[in-house]
Amino acid sequence: MPRFDHEGLRRLLTDIGRAIGADDDAAGIVARHLINANLAGHDSHGMMRIVQYVQEMESGKIDPHDAARVLDEWDTGAVIDAGKTFGQVACHNAMRLAIDKARHSGLAAVTIRNANHSGRLGTYVEMAAESGMIGMAMANGGGSGQWVAPFGGCEPRLSTNPLTIGLPSGKPFPIVLDMSTSIAPEGKVRDYLQRGKTLPDGWLVDATGNPTCDPHQLYAIPPGALRPFGGPAGHKGYGLAFIVDAFAGALSQAGCPQAGDFSPMHRTGLFMMALQIDRFAPLAEFILRISEMSDYVKSSRPAAGFDRVLIPGEFEHEQRQQRTREGIELPQSVWNEVCDIVETLNQRADETAIILPESSETTS
Amino acid sequence: MPRFDHEGLRRLLTDIGRAIGADDDAAGIVARHLINANLAGHDSHGMMRIVQYVQEMESGKIDPHDAARVLDEWDTGAVIDAGKTFGQVACHNAMRLAIDKARHSGLAAVTIRNANHSGRLGTYVEMAAESGMIGMAMANGGGSGQWVAPFGGCEPRLSTNPLTIGLPSGKPFPIVLDMSTSIAPEGKVRDYLQRGKTLPDGWLVDATGNPTCDPHQLYAIPPGALRPFGGPAGHKGYGLAFIVDAFAGALSQAGCPQAGDFSPMHRTGLFMMALQIDRFAPLAEFILRISEMSDYVKSSRPAAGFDRVLIPGEFEHEQRQQRTREGIELPQSVWNEVCDIVETLNQRADETAIILPESSETTS
Repeated sequence: MPRFDHEGLRRLLTDIGRAIGADDDAAGIVARHLINANLAGHDSHGMMRIVQYVQEMESGKIDPHDAARVLDEWDTGAVIDAGKTFGQVACHNAMRLAIDKARHSGLAAVTIRNANHSGRLGTYVEMAAESGMIGMAMANGGGSGQWVAPFGGCEPRLSTNPLTIGLPSGKPFPIVLDMSTSIAPEGKVRDYLQRGKTLPDGWLVDATGNPTCDPHQLYAIPPGALRPFGGPAGHKGYGLAFIVDAFAGALSQAGCPQAGDFSPMHRTGLFMMALQIDRFAPLAEFILRISEMSDYVKSSRPAAGFDRVLIPGEFEHEQRQQRTREGIELPQSVWNEVCDIVETLNQRADETAIILPESSETTS
Repeated sequence: MPRFDHEGLRRLLTDIGRAIGADDDAAGIVARHLINANLAGHDSHGMMRIVQYVQEMESGKIDPHDAARVLDEWDTGAVIDAGKTFGQVACHNAMRLAIDKARHSGLAAVTIRNANHSGRLGTYVEMAAESGMIGMAMANGGGSGQWVAPFGGCEPRLSTNPLTIGLPSGKPFPIVLDMSTSIAPEGKVRDYLQRGKTLPDGWLVDATGNPTCDPHQLYAIPPGALRPFGGPAGHKGYGLAFIVDAFAGALSQAGCPQAGDFSPMHRTGLFMMALQIDRFAPLAEFILRISEMSDYVKSSRPAAGFDRVLIPGEFEHEQRQQRTREGIELPQSVWNEVCDIVETLNQRADETAIILPESSETTS
């Protein structure tokens, strides 16, 4: 796989963003967001998404010239329609608005409806953590993306409904919990299918309601379903998924799951919140407690099959350090698609052509 | 087991509360709270707790004449020290304050430190749901009550850190997710131990880090630990537990887990939030979406081993209906302890004696 310095990829994405019509701000937000996802180890939300976004521009789902609209706004909140802008631009600006409001009022929440693909939610709560705040973000499929069965059921009803919370830690990275409320994202099942592998136990039920490790069952007619996370306590993961739909879908008016609502053009509903820590407790004291608790929790002896205990956000931090140092590897197929996009854009351009960054090949 | 009409038990608890020094308001709050827990099917947070509270009064942990103090207060929040009052009184008044503030500002949060046993958290978020709000509550052990291992670890580090969210549903009951972030509460392990039974798979690790179904291992020296909920995705349950400590322990300044902090006189830290739905979306529309989603989710065929799908709060609703109709059963041992308390209080009293309600015996 070709490997690239992250700065080179960020510049490339910024150039692509500008060339497809985004202004400097928007192009920068999308490029930083995607590269940060790669750096954090979440390649499924990284560089590869630019291919999807260019396709969605061509189909009219994304319009880089559009902007989100603030439909209502008050001291502690706002209601936003994301319009056709990039999901990252709408979400970045929405979290920025929540942070600004929380700085004055202590606490603020923003809902977003109608958003395009919004990337890695962890990025937005990291913005809050960097501002001395606790950040929270939730997303639903606006009623679509139904892959997940309710606990005790076997028909897909819910989307994977992620929930993310971040806060400052006194460590070189913020505490970030960034999780789907299903046992795994749908994309991972697709990945097992494509590689001809069977799934781990507990991921799927088939359409008859029995457990299965066959990834085809999720895409069968009638379909099986992903399980909510929780194992024997799956009612808790399901309950959280339900709550995420209430915040991200009902409160935002993006929509919640209903019968027959499987639009492939679905857009996301989101809820974002920021809480100014030092309105409640001295920030330094809060951070000290989190830092001490982190050390104490990590001091636990590892269980069988583990070599150490991590705190939420630590995996991403270690990935970020390694990939900043060693570069970001891209699958050859993704890189080829990016090169195709650049070639097309360069043919269209009147002036400066987009220049591809140098890569080094890796053997893995 | 003796069975009682819930109104009779509520009056009895109110009389006991008054006799031990609580004013009418406080006695009424505690009595309603405990009986509501029994009605909802959560006997471990119900009537049996009055025995503990009377003991804690005698040891000085609870002082019914004390009151919570609001240490700081602003438009969207407050910081409360619960003092020695009943936990339910401090929490009821704190959620009431959050609701009142959210009615004006759209969103409000209150932290509580130093609280006595606060009962069933679901009760407080139900108050928010009844007011057309989304309510959220979290509690930690203030650093104590360490029973739960971090994901990948085998030493107890965290308390069972419950998280509760409630909202109006358009159904005869609110949506209420009320869950511990551990696979099960510690009390259930103790119950298995006392009945000489082995635990279900996946609940415990022993002190060497291996899975065990022997309930003794939780109380061994060195101790084993409860697992966070989540099964193979236990990093999510652990991550939620960590976040609950941040909100309920660090933000409230109640304290978070540290080495050697195992005080048996521990007090609870809490975080409570209320969000006024109609600042974000018309309440009727929000409720319609939740109601429609509830019906759609419930329409899923049941999985193997289940006869139907429930929505969060439905189990408690059905329990409430049945127990309101048929009465509340109390274990003979609990009833004997309550009778002892009443006898002692009646011997002390100058005036009206507390009268015990009539019971009907059941065979179960």
